[in-house]
Amino acid sequence: MVTRSDVEAAAKLVAGRVRQTPVLCVDGRDLGVSGELALKLELHQHTGSFKPRGAFNRLLQSPLPAAGVLAASGGNHGLAVAYAARELGVPAEIFVPVTSSPVKVERLAGLDAQVRQVGEHYAEAFAASTRRAEETGALVVHAYDQQEVVAGQGTLARELERQLDRIDTVLVAVGGGGLVGGIASWFDGAVGVVGVEPEGIPTLHAALAAGRPVDVEVGGVATDSLGARRIGDLAFEAATRTGVRSVLVPDEDVVRARRLLWSELRIAAELGGATALAALLTGAYVPRQGERVVVVVCGGNTDPSDLAPHRVR
Amino acid sequence: MVTRSDVEAAAKLVAGRVRQTPVLCVDGRDLGVSGELALKLELHQHTGSFKPRGAFNRLLQSPLPAAGVLAASGGNHGLAVAYAARELGVPAEIFVPVTSSPVKVERLAGLDAQVRQVGEHYAEAFAASTRRAEETGALVVHAYDQQEVVAGQGTLARELERQLDRIDTVLVAVGGGGLVGGIASWFDGAVGVVGVEPEGIPTLHAALAAGRPVDVEVGGVATDSLGARRIGDLAFEAATRTGVRSVLVPDEDVVRARRLLWSELRIAAELGGATALAALLTGAYVPRQGERVVVVVCGGNTDPSDLAPHRVR
Repeated sequence: MVTRSDVEAAAKLVAGRVRQTPVLCVDGRDLGVSGELALKLELHQHTGSFKPRGAFNRLLQSPLPAAGVLAASGGNHGLAVAYAARELGVPAEIFVPVTSSPVKVERLAGLDAQVRQVGEHYAEAFAASTRRAEETGALVVHAYDQQEVVAGQGTLARELERQLDRIDTVLVAVGGGGLVGGIASWFDGAVGVVGVEPEGIPTLHAALAAGRPVDVEVGGVATDSLGARRIGDLAFEAATRTGVRSVLVPDEDVVRARRLLWSELRIAAELGGATALAALLTGAYVPRQGERVVVVVCGGNTDPSDLAPHRVR
Repeated sequence: MVTRSDVEAAAKLVAGRVRQTPVLCVDGRDLGVSGELALKLELHQHTGSFKPRGAFNRLLQSPLPAAGVLAASGGNHGLAVAYAARELGVPAEIFVPVTSSPVKVERLAGLDAQVRQVGEHYAEAFAASTRRAEETGALVVHAYDQQEVVAGQGTLARELERQLDRIDTVLVAVGGGGLVGGIASWFDGAVGVVGVEPEGIPTLHAALAAGRPVDVEVGGVATDSLGARRIGDLAFEAATRTGVRSVLVPDEDVVRARRLLWSELRIAAELGGATALAALLTGAYVPRQGERVVVVVCGGNTDPSDLAPHRVR
């Protein structure tokens, strides 16, 4: 279980290591929805996503072995662990499937990580990483289901609370649940938290329906950043304890949300980073009159080529 | 002459019409420079640049004739005037040269503006717009050298002052000088203001050297947004009265600054919007130890295609 005081402790540890990311307040009408919106621009975080919050908290709470740290992920988590390790001066070994794109492997290598390409799928890379950790004694940083990781992601919520005088509801995309779990743990029911998932990756939705974390099929446009097979136990516990709601959005609206963020606000988000906004566009979440809604734009590791030419409003 | 109280009055008028844009504080080392930097993310303004501040102030200070408003510009100024006119429910007529890109003409039309394509160059479009204004009685909104426009752009500085507890120096790109003039008028010498210009468009630099606004040759990568032929009289007056300094940067460093904003911060700026940062990268401006520097990222009307694949740090 992750508590508010775990997040408080994490915030002290990661201060100066992670950026305080800005909040942009906009009239919802600019995006075709009602009310005022606050967008938490976490895509401006180091490595382009919220993940360094959890990675730094994990690394800074643990004695760092000479073998360094280890993670399985060719995506945002891998980048964050590699970045945090480099900043703290320890080696990082990142396991990715052989199917990972050369661009991702190159980025990881650019952060001085040792990249190990193993297996066709993430599960095989993950299994190999676990075996390797047993051999070397490296510190494993899980992508979402680890106490320090969830508490670290929760620092985003603590920061947000200091940036706005009032928050009624936070909309946040869900993959494995590290971020939503951390945010829910910080607010502890005092603020509404809505987990938004693409229909093709309903980890939280399926878990809430089943009463426990269950495996789901994974597919669709946001698989790259949200494609976990099941919600983490810590996130599920935090979600059920604090009353996190779950809504689903079709892929096409995730795509539309990403395009709107660019055309109306010049924010170049990745699809996972635009998923929370999609809940407002589709009406999957409808705020009450006067409700103060925050939309977390959680990542910007995108190829922005398809965002031009843009329409200007 | 534009005064601090003109800017104060402008801020009251444009409140609710323009967005308060966020500030991102980063460690300069992330961009290869020393000290702490604050980036004013004005690219998230309506229509993707600071220009609506001046446009709204001009429109809201004047009785609006039935003929509406009129401007000459196929760029950020034209978009802002078209947007402001639409929001206030009056027609806008925008004059652009026939050489303007179809994309720009389309964007203006998308904002319900009447687009008039006249002449090969901006000067001809401008001359035609002046004649047309005499015929119709439409309110002319100048791109930079108009009292209300400069005062409106100055609201960016007033906003900045409320967002940060201390500011020593503001770095800002200069074209015709509306923005630097407004910022200098607000701070009135209490904060250092540095005008940054590409070497190919040294309007402020040349004017300071000559002791008066003079024509310059216009060329280089940022011509699209900074390509004025001479600094406005109002901006020149404000700059000399308040001690604005001027530095020049090579085009290649403007390009480099734009790429860094994306690779390190996931900010997709236009070249003019990245120009201020280039002054730090080149050492054209070197902050003192502990100096609190703000870099204005003044626009994001860019085709982001060339920003991928990106390096992640």
